[in-house]
Amino acid sequence: MAVTRPGGPVDGSSPDAVSIAVPERASTGPVVARALRLLEAFSDERPTLTLSEISRRSGVPLSTAHRLVAALETWGAVERDPAGRYQVGLRLWEVGALAPRGPGLRERALPYLEDLCAVTRENVQLAVREDDEIVYVERLAGTQAVGVHIRVGGRWAMTATGVGLVLLAHAPPDVVERVLEGPFTRHTPWTLTDPARIRETLAAVRTRGYAVSERQITSDATSVAAPVRDATGEVVAALSVVAHHGNPPVSVLAPLVRTSAGGVSHALAAGRRPRRPR
Amino acid sequence: MAVTRPGGPVDGSSPDAVSIAVPERASTGPVVARALRLLEAFSDERPTLTLSEISRRSGVPLSTAHRLVAALETWGAVERDPAGRYQVGLRLWEVGALAPRGPGLRERALPYLEDLCAVTRENVQLAVREDDEIVYVERLAGTQAVGVHIRVGGRWAMTATGVGLVLLAHAPPDVVERVLEGPFTRHTPWTLTDPARIRETLAAVRTRGYAVSERQITSDATSVAAPVRDATGEVVAALSVVAHHGNPPVSVLAPLVRTSAGGVSHALAAGRRPRRPR
Repeated sequence: MAVTRPGGPVDGSSPDAVSIAVPERASTGPVVARALRLLEAFSDERPTLTLSEISRRSGVPLSTAHRLVAALETWGAVERDPAGRYQVGLRLWEVGALAPRGPGLRERALPYLEDLCAVTRENVQLAVREDDEIVYVERLAGTQAVGVHIRVGGRWAMTATGVGLVLLAHAPPDVVERVLEGPFTRHTPWTLTDPARIRETLAAVRTRGYAVSERQITSDATSVAAPVRDATGEVVAALSVVAHHGNPPVSVLAPLVRTSAGGVSHALAAGRRPRRPR
Repeated sequence: MAVTRPGGPVDGSSPDAVSIAVPERASTGPVVARALRLLEAFSDERPTLTLSEISRRSGVPLSTAHRLVAALETWGAVERDPAGRYQVGLRLWEVGALAPRGPGLRERALPYLEDLCAVTRENVQLAVREDDEIVYVERLAGTQAVGVHIRVGGRWAMTATGVGLVLLAHAPPDVVERVLEGPFTRHTPWTLTDPARIRETLAAVRTRGYAVSERQITSDATSVAAPVRDATGEVVAALSVVAHHGNPPVSVLAPLVRTSAGGVSHALAAGRRPRRPR
């Protein structure tokens, strides 16, 4: 530490460092923000990147990216593969595994998801809202299941999926207005793109207690979703089955999905997470 | 950006910020390192923390922690629960889910783990080495399984487990020497704590192609583990079965575990990860 006066130090960690006291809030946020922004360069399609690819994809100049990546690598947020390319580090995954809305929720919900998957033999999903999108926290593949396009940790638009419609129906008004401004990606002739129609759909979701997304992403699949609530009654997640359109009918799936979602809600309301198996 | 000259800017993002050009490398590393260090305050036992708990547990002064946590929260690395306590953010989990050595490895290994679990009806584990410890990447619970103390994303000492012995047997010499310096935690009378004995065990692991950890963590359980190799032949993970001590015998389990580990190795050598289910 080069400087210790309140207001914040600039650390002098290299021999030739210039140690000047400046308000730390002037640099802390941007430096940390830029370091974290570098992590966004990685994606499912691009799991390993060179330094210049990280720089280019994140819009951070190469010299800055070089220093920030070095800091990330020291801690283990990124690591290098045998070919020397950077990838997201195991350490980051370890810390991320502590996220209550990700693996924490998944762990408590899993027995209910497994039961629903075993009974329906269809794909079962669990998702939460992050900003204006949904993030899939778990997905179980049914033995007789229709093709599904999602991955765990992946994002999807809210209006095109059953879980998205449930989470949007219970989102704050500002989120709803932003989402309804569009744009909407049309996947099939049945994809919802009319804001007025979507508003009606959201009202129906609240009234009926479940959402049906009919053939919105592929023409052969329909999803039925229900809300998962925490101890205070707030909707914190949504659970769905994706099945072949019309088979089984929604009238069969909806009670099953609602029952499962209720089970997860009860587990969350019970508070403490279940003891880990010994 | 207040300054753009090479050497690195200090951003002036608040109205009263003092914008002075100093070598960014003097501050970047420490600021990013301290921000990431705050994340280490969270644990499985303490998934939510107040700001002062984060400060105390990470050893970062409260005022500094306040600013760093704000930067982490803006990006989504931490978020607040309804009670206002901080927790690891969903965003961090999303990025962590891209770690090739975590979920990437798990995805490719899962079919083999599931087969091994179905055949043995015992607990099946997949682990990698991180520094001087092992990290569990996946664990499947067998229907007739003995109790196991691990969690996915959790760490364990290398010498006390089958997967750890495999990974240590194939670790660089400096890692082996550091681990053999101890200290060793004795869980049962059978826990290995003698460095000479551990060296013999590691040699046997390399010769036989599998590791047996007998009753080291609990008196009723033994694990049998085998190495998973990448396309270059390097050991990148270990796969194990944990069963009741002596039943099934090691002579039955070892060929099964080696076959499964070989299957995962072939899948890794095949290079590209399997296409995601559509």
